[in-house]
Amino acid sequence: MKAILKEKAGPGFIMKDIAKPEKLGPRDVLIKVRRASICGTDIHIYRWDEWSQSRIKPPLIVGHEMAGEVVAVGEAVTRVKIGDLVSAETHIPCEHCIQCQTGRMHVCKNLEILGVDRNGVFAEYTVVPETVLWKFSPEIPLDFASVMEPFGNAIHTSLVTDLTGKKVLITGAGPIGLMAIQVARASGASLVITSEVNEDRLKMAEENGADYVINPMKQNLIETVYSITEDGVDILLEMSGNRKALIDGLECVTMGGEVSLLGIFGGSIDINLDSLVIMKGITMYGITGRRMFDTWKVADELLKSKKVDLSKVVTHVIPFEKWESGFELMLNKKCGKVVLNFDE
Amino acid sequence: MKAILKEKAGPGFIMKDIAKPEKLGPRDVLIKVRRASICGTDIHIYRWDEWSQSRIKPPLIVGHEMAGEVVAVGEAVTRVKIGDLVSAETHIPCEHCIQCQTGRMHVCKNLEILGVDRNGVFAEYTVVPETVLWKFSPEIPLDFASVMEPFGNAIHTSLVTDLTGKKVLITGAGPIGLMAIQVARASGASLVITSEVNEDRLKMAEENGADYVINPMKQNLIETVYSITEDGVDILLEMSGNRKALIDGLECVTMGGEVSLLGIFGGSIDINLDSLVIMKGITMYGITGRRMFDTWKVADELLKSKKVDLSKVVTHVIPFEKWESGFELMLNKKCGKVVLNFDE
Amino acid sequence: MKAILKEKAGPGFIMKDIAKPEKLGPRDVLIKVRRASICGTDIHIYRWDEWSQSRIKPPLIVGHEMAGEVVAVGEAVTRVKIGDLVSAETHIPCEHCIQCQTGRMHVCKNLEILGVDRNGVFAEYTVVPETVLWKFSPEIPLDFASVMEPFGNAIHTSLVTDLTGKKVLITGAGPIGLMAIQVARASGASLVITSEVNEDRLKMAEENGADYVINPMKQNLIETVYSITEDGVDILLEMSGNRKALIDGLECVTMGGEVSLLGIFGGSIDINLDSLVIMKGITMYGITGRRMFDTWKVADELLKSKKVDLSKVVTHVIPFEKWESGFELMLNKKCGKVVLNFDE
Amino acid sequence: MKAILKEKAGPGFIMKDIAKPEKLGPRDVLIKVRRASICGTDIHIYRWDEWSQSRIKPPLIVGHEMAGEVVAVGEAVTRVKIGDLVSAETHIPCEHCIQCQTGRMHVCKNLEILGVDRNGVFAEYTVVPETVLWKFSPEIPLDFASVMEPFGNAIHTSLVTDLTGKKVLITGAGPIGLMAIQVARASGASLVITSEVNEDRLKMAEENGADYVINPMKQNLIETVYSITEDGVDILLEMSGNRKALIDGLECVTMGGEVSLLGIFGGSIDINLDSLVIMKGITMYGITGRRMFDTWKVADELLKSKKVDLSKVVTHVIPFEKWESGFELMLNKKCGKVVLNFDE
Repeated sequence: MKAILKEKAGPGFIMKDIAKPEKLGPRDVLIKVRRASICGTDIHIYRWDEWSQSRIKPPLIVGHEMAGEVVAVGEAVTRVKIGDLVSAETHIPCEHCIQCQTGRMHVCKNLEILGVDRNGVFAEYTVVPETVLWKFSPEIPLDFASVMEPFGNAIHTSLVTDLTGKKVLITGAGPIGLMAIQVARASGASLVITSEVNEDRLKMAEENGADYVINPMKQNLIETVYSITEDGVDILLEMSGNRKALIDGLECVTMGGEVSLLGIFGGSIDINLDSLVIMKGITMYGITGRRMFDTWKVADELLKSKKVDLSKVVTHVIPFEKWESGFELMLNKKCGKVVLNFDE
Repeated sequence: MKAILKEKAGPGFIMKDIAKPEKLGPRDVLIKVRRASICGTDIHIYRWDEWSQSRIKPPLIVGHEMAGEVVAVGEAVTRVKIGDLVSAETHIPCEHCIQCQTGRMHVCKNLEILGVDRNGVFAEYTVVPETVLWKFSPEIPLDFASVMEPFGNAIHTSLVTDLTGKKVLITGAGPIGLMAIQVARASGASLVITSEVNEDRLKMAEENGADYVINPMKQNLIETVYSITEDGVDILLEMSGNRKALIDGLECVTMGGEVSLLGIFGGSIDINLDSLVIMKGITMYGITGRRMFDTWKVADELLKSKKVDLSKVVTHVIPFEKWESGFELMLNKKCGKVVLNFDE
Repeated sequence: MKAILKEKAGPGFIMKDIAKPEKLGPRDVLIKVRRASICGTDIHIYRWDEWSQSRIKPPLIVGHEMAGEVVAVGEAVTRVKIGDLVSAETHIPCEHCIQCQTGRMHVCKNLEILGVDRNGVFAEYTVVPETVLWKFSPEIPLDFASVMEPFGNAIHTSLVTDLTGKKVLITGAGPIGLMAIQVARASGASLVITSEVNEDRLKMAEENGADYVINPMKQNLIETVYSITEDGVDILLEMSGNRKALIDGLECVTMGGEVSLLGIFGGSIDINLDSLVIMKGITMYGITGRRMFDTWKVADELLKSKKVDLSKVVTHVIPFEKWESGFELMLNKKCGKVVLNFDE
Repeated sequence: MKAILKEKAGPGFIMKDIAKPEKLGPRDVLIKVRRASICGTDIHIYRWDEWSQSRIKPPLIVGHEMAGEVVAVGEAVTRVKIGDLVSAETHIPCEHCIQCQTGRMHVCKNLEILGVDRNGVFAEYTVVPETVLWKFSPEIPLDFASVMEPFGNAIHTSLVTDLTGKKVLITGAGPIGLMAIQVARASGASLVITSEVNEDRLKMAEENGADYVINPMKQNLIETVYSITEDGVDILLEMSGNRKALIDGLECVTMGGEVSLLGIFGGSIDINLDSLVIMKGITMYGITGRRMFDTWKVADELLKSKKVDLSKVVTHVIPFEKWESGFELMLNKKCGKVVLNFDE
């Protein structure tokens, strides 16, 4: 089968013909991949940055976002059957730590990540444990099912609190930020403001329904937010991983507001918790992964009911074989989500 | 000033010229009423039913839903000033019981109700304590501001839990049920089913955005709900006060679901809590009033941002003087909300 | 091996020598039972009441509460290993319904119950799926580990809300009621009142730490509760399954209070939801099973830290062979929990 | 009347005879102070540190913690009457900002603080608005009623989440930390670990019920916590205002844990939110003030029921006139809480 590999330490990937996986553990599932999508993490591994060098052990099939079809199951599998269409949670939990045992598998102490710690999904076939499979509703197009994992990030970040009637600031309008705009609107936010430095993405933010978009390189974020809202925003969704975005974003949050942190800052941050968090009575949620499978259920319902329309987020669907052009798009940030189509 | 009175024990109301209220307590506010709307409770008092006979002490100015303008304030008033446009919470809390002191004024142990326990708002001027006033956003039309109180019921009932991605059944499509359809949709419900026996209201339910409408006199509610949803609904909002609606509605709720009770049944109900509530792990919320002023804030935001449009609920706006035609509409259930306009 | 069986339709059980289970499914675990305890459900099956006749298919090994040692595991088992000491959740979830997939296995739509729908634990060896096993802390005595399942009911019922500083009424002082008294106290309730008609159990309620005990056959429950509390109680834990206990208990709850329903009434109940639930703004939680494994984790911590001491609830520990005397105690209600010891 | 004043800019206080307040606003209450207690904030003002210089406008009566008796009320006062024994919330909310209007007066946007922004309670008589008064239960000794305000901080910080069965680390064992130890134990924490550098206070931590005490100058905090708990703690209550305490404390928190921040760091902090908060799925609560009056209700119940005993926190009760010795104790940190007694 064809697969995209990090074959050895160093930048870049290669597409190769390798053996199709044959042996399934008792709870393993063999999936014929039909769509896969490119994540920022794949770009980190492609570039072979510091984090990749410390974490990735080549050779490795990369990629973790996908939609596919079950084609074989291990003998103890009960949750899916041959023919089911599935997407996959990419954080594989151990199922026996106390977090896993108390309904919080997304903060499992022994997580393995698809396409990072074990072979991923940029291949015609992939093997994953039944534990992480989500049978998505048939009404959901494969192109959107492939991006349910990052869409889940947008949902998990947004729904830490009920947004109905709330004013929301989203800092960062990458693909997950764009999806969060739609999630916030669909779940009742009365106002969605988005800040982003990339003008193409600001335009996409508007297209995805942001009430106001702000380029903090051109406008003072704090002043603009207060001029729009009078009282500041109730909720900050930090999706940029930019230090100034967090600090200015916190200034924009009203007393007693809530802040959800998804963006990774790539190191420590110098922050005045006294004035920005403690004396304001702010709650800050660190967000990782997706709740299994509460988040996926919401994702499925929002897509099935068309409350969220990902057609303005998934900007490119290209044949699997032409994967290199997809990576180019991602490297140049000239896109939303890029989906690889294995059916063509 | 002109006022609508229950002048003495017995059916009916009368419009009379009476003295404008002059003396204000230190925290009282005098309001020039500009809109008022008719509630089912007013109809009960009009008809002089059993409940009214035991509760109402004529002579009494009736009516409790309104939007108006502050024209005078007591010497200790700090929350509003002359010229403010306000709507009013109609449940006047004591402010000193433990419920009031812990942010739960809507379940005050010593509630007085406007137009029931003290003079109401069907008058050119009315006096209420500052405690219950809500300064609504100027973007909200007076006709809609007048119905913020029942709209608040719809919100309080609906938002006991985050509805994003949830399937909702609303039993009863009176005005509050109609508003709840919109609230559920605006706050992310993926499916809204409404049951109602009155065909005119079923049609209004559709116009207000219900995905499915069911007349339980013509279709089996439980079977229909399961044919639509497979698993049943996550949430039941009971707004009919009909015993069969509750019991059949509970059958429609999935294991672990949630139920909000707003409708009043008018007496006891024979119900199998074992099978319908306990063994299903259902949570049931008894709903009364509106959270002060959390619910009002959400109401304001949803109206201001136009996430909810009450133009299909407020079916009639008529001059105050022609109040009798408004009561006729209500008695015949040929309407949504009827608003009395004092400006014309 | 020796086992207690419902051998055929009709009252009573029999102890017999039967074959030890040999074949394990891939996720099954073979457990050497070391303690097992008798539940009211076992008594229903013993008596062969209406419910038992409709549900139980003899021959069946009965019993579901236990503590034991893992002696063999199926090939796909990862959560436990040979030698682990375990207790078991008795509600076996399907793991694939939406409830199971969203962290709510206790309201699984396809539950099977140990000792009811499949062979139970009153036997020297028993087979259960790894999914339901809880490795309890070694500090917990086997006698107490055996009753962690009903203790979990007490916890699940009590902890629907934070009890710190709350006044609690527990109606019914059977074994779970007694455990709930301790849970309420340990988790910060400022006052625990217990009502019960059986004088022996009232005495046990006092020994387990109830601040007040009331026999509603001798004292008016409502008057007594209000004379103690002034405002009524914040929380009602209904553990009697008695209709009057629920209705009078609801009268005792303050405006905006919370009610947890565990007791089964054995049929419908005539109740005024208007005055008792809706107009009071009461929340009612139907309770079934135990959260897997949030509830078990709390149970483990409370027992390990000795915040709860079950020595006044487990009144009898008798050898497995003398099981008949245990059933006699239960039939006469002359006991708290009765534990069967397989080690002697 | 006698009062302790910051008479002019500069270090120190003076006791002087000044006029008793005479004029009451319509909602004001005149209180005869019977106990008052010294807070760290009073010490800051005494020392005339940078914060004090920027905030305090002399002349000012200082002090904010107290218990006293109502001796006169303004004409619009309804919540208290002459003779009531009261303690006072020291954060005076505006009652009209959106935070105040939605049950979150503790994060009022226009807070005034007693003894900081307006005359305080270190005086024989003090005037406060009825809004901030709490009528404490008569079972509570005056010495303890005086410290209900900082005790409320301990409660507000601790009860952001239900502690039943949770492992808790408290960094900092000043008076509020000591009270938090008792609150955590009373509300069901299964393990309470306290870290503190002052050996006298470590001893007090033990006396107040900490299961383990750690001096991080002598032992590695992180290693010690993991050696005690295996998995880390579920909850961190940061009460030291020490940067290293927060960072090491966060390392001690298990995946998905919760952190409550009360201590003020006195400036910015360099922190890796990526690894300590985001990727661990941690929730961080900034804590300010006390919920009005949810927190006070819990405080009252815990003191009334003797679930918490403050006798090991209130280490000194001295006559008002000897206030200088009280400040000396505080300056030398040779004490828990110091209470000034006006009755002697």
